[in-house]
Amino acid sequence: MFTVTVREHLMIAHSFHGEVFGPAQRLHGATYLVDATFQRAELDADNVVVDMALAATELRGIVAALSYRNLDEDPDFAGTNTTTEFLAKVIADRLADRIHEGALGEGARELAGIAVKLHESHIAWASYRRAL
Amino acid sequence: MFTVTVREHLMIAHSFHGEVFGPAQRLHGATYLVDATFQRAELDADNVVVDMALAATELRGIVAALSYRNLDEDPDFAGTNTTTEFLAKVIADRLADRIHEGALGEGARELAGIAVKLHESHIAWASYRRAL
Amino acid sequence: MFTVTVREHLMIAHSFHGEVFGPAQRLHGATYLVDATFQRAELDADNVVVDMALAATELRGIVAALSYRNLDEDPDFAGTNTTTEFLAKVIADRLADRIHEGALGEGARELAGIAVKLHESHIAWASYRRAL
Amino acid sequence: MFTVTVREHLMIAHSFHGEVFGPAQRLHGATYLVDATFQRAELDADNVVVDMALAATELRGIVAALSYRNLDEDPDFAGTNTTTEFLAKVIADRLADRIHEGALGEGARELAGIAVKLHESHIAWASYRRAL
Amino acid sequence: MFTVTVREHLMIAHSFHGEVFGPAQRLHGATYLVDATFQRAELDADNVVVDMALAATELRGIVAALSYRNLDEDPDFAGTNTTTEFLAKVIADRLADRIHEGALGEGARELAGIAVKLHESHIAWASYRRAL
Amino acid sequence: MFTVTVREHLMIAHSFHGEVFGPAQRLHGATYLVDATFQRAELDADNVVVDMALAATELRGIVAALSYRNLDEDPDFAGTNTTTEFLAKVIADRLADRIHEGALGEGARELAGIAVKLHESHIAWASYRRAL
Repeated sequence: MFTVTVREHLMIAHSFHGEVFGPAQRLHGATYLVDATFQRAELDADNVVVDMALAATELRGIVAALSYRNLDEDPDFAGTNTTTEFLAKVIADRLADRIHEGALGEGARELAGIAVKLHESHIAWASYRRAL
Repeated sequence: MFTVTVREHLMIAHSFHGEVFGPAQRLHGATYLVDATFQRAELDADNVVVDMALAATELRGIVAALSYRNLDEDPDFAGTNTTTEFLAKVIADRLADRIHEGALGEGARELAGIAVKLHESHIAWASYRRAL
Repeated sequence: MFTVTVREHLMIAHSFHGEVFGPAQRLHGATYLVDATFQRAELDADNVVVDMALAATELRGIVAALSYRNLDEDPDFAGTNTTTEFLAKVIADRLADRIHEGALGEGARELAGIAVKLHESHIAWASYRRAL
Repeated sequence: MFTVTVREHLMIAHSFHGEVFGPAQRLHGATYLVDATFQRAELDADNVVVDMALAATELRGIVAALSYRNLDEDPDFAGTNTTTEFLAKVIADRLADRIHEGALGEGARELAGIAVKLHESHIAWASYRRAL
Repeated sequence: MFTVTVREHLMIAHSFHGEVFGPAQRLHGATYLVDATFQRAELDADNVVVDMALAATELRGIVAALSYRNLDEDPDFAGTNTTTEFLAKVIADRLADRIHEGALGEGARELAGIAVKLHESHIAWASYRRAL
Repeated sequence: MFTVTVREHLMIAHSFHGEVFGPAQRLHGATYLVDATFQRAELDADNVVVDMALAATELRGIVAALSYRNLDEDPDFAGTNTTTEFLAKVIADRLADRIHEGALGEGARELAGIAVKLHESHIAWASYRRAL
């Protein structure tokens, strides 16, 4: 199994609901390093897992739509705790949609899965992995 | 599949038995960066894999019980090579025990597995992964 | 010249005023890795630059007073752009105050200077350095 | 499942064929950080996954045979795009050959698999994983 | 004194002349992480050292002019060893020229100095610092 | 001013004397990442700060003499707290001696200074800088 990963980052504000979050119930924010990993059983004729330029462009677009915003005010997330693990799934699912739409090229239709890891600090990170 | 990881660190002395260890047969020491990863198929009602504050507290407790010690003198490890891979298992198993005791909350009982990675330097690390 | 550095982190929300900030004029947030460096010409009788436990405790206190907040609502920063470079100075100055109050011990009065570096992402950071 | 990883690095020149590569069709180069991971179900009698000194020596030898070269002129890669993902497989397969030849010791014959990750920059990396 | 740093990267081929370089006399290549640091005594009215968007754009332009090339064929470097330390100076001097031309804004004319650090691997890096 | 840095690492056991050290008064250990920086005003005829291969070899030798040992039993350090900042000076002074003996080549006599940074964990490091 082969993988390729590209990194972007994201800076947002949000707050959480639930005592489990302690002080993070207050409006605060985070820089997330976003590592998007593309998996494929065999390389294509160019010897790549995916067109990395397209993959980076699509990831950048998905990240830009979330960046420099207060996620508490994003209608997509109304009443939702936008935790690190949840946001990993949001980004992975949006990438999967773009792959299914053909935005990463025809070859990307042979990807086996994707994984998105979000680092919220040097001591905490989360990931979500799914099939395609 | 979702994961959440928290990082701690550990500073210990120890020595190894066996020619395979070369100069590391002498009493020496290490700083281990300890990355504890919690895996779960679905997020809970708060949108988290685990109560990260509890997870960090439990990891800190397990690490503190090992820290600033000469592991050669720890009765738990008598006659045992406390290699990086072995210590990864020790910490993972102790975390699993705490999860089974309920210390990470009721939700943690739905964790699918845990993995512990120990970095012994910038050029070497080891991990152990187990089901729960 | 000797230095010792300890790292903490900080998660906040804020917004900026001025066209130079582009999309960062919107309410957003950041995780800052905070590296506080203490400088001293000679080591003390214990062979240290500063009591690292006290230094870490004081840094943690200063960081905690800022953490998990919307800095736009902090009266200390009313009408102020809380940029990365500005926050580095805030933390350095608060550390200097604590040093002058004796909170880092008598030995800390011989520190020559401090520097605070804030990493806002894997591709951008800022610092402020001052004498004591 | 246990793993042990050792890191080396590699500096090479090469060029790619195919429009997907954009400016990387020109002769350029890369530093690759090479992380070789060895997997094993149970530790051996010494409590290790593999003789790390032997593993590091073999990885260093494989890397040295590629280092400080123009891969476009390496007969092994004639007409081949030596992409990051492809080179991960080359190194993994050469390590597997050395394991099968006994170069990592008898114990290494019980390794379950290996994975090689190559970092081409701070924002892109690739990996290949195979059974043994 | 305040600083702000932005990171880019660069992938090039080159070779060196002189026995001191050993195997690096052969055509090979490198990924350089490029950290450009801007220094200034006081913050401007926006509370910044420099317009970070402009700084990043200019750095990206300077890096792009070098990227994905064989530096041995760049007329600017004919007969020159394009070592890591030398390239740090090239990039710093080109940034200084752009600052003097006003490309980083009027405020950038008050910068005290710049420093460029190039990481050639996880175990080696070089820097050049100059006044403006 | 130019600099070049090379990284090594060191694994040792030791204990500290003095209440300031808390639990680190017990025998424990550390992995130190060792970054040795060489400073020079102008590059030499080869466009380098120092013969990096010689510099790395000398650093490796100095580190090897300390590695995989209990520093409490090293006669050079009898009655001395081998703190991170102290060990940075030990390594810097030993490098300076080797430079003065000519071990880094004639050109190294024109180095302006050296700095040694030791990382004891991901959240703490120390350095020592001296003229030559």
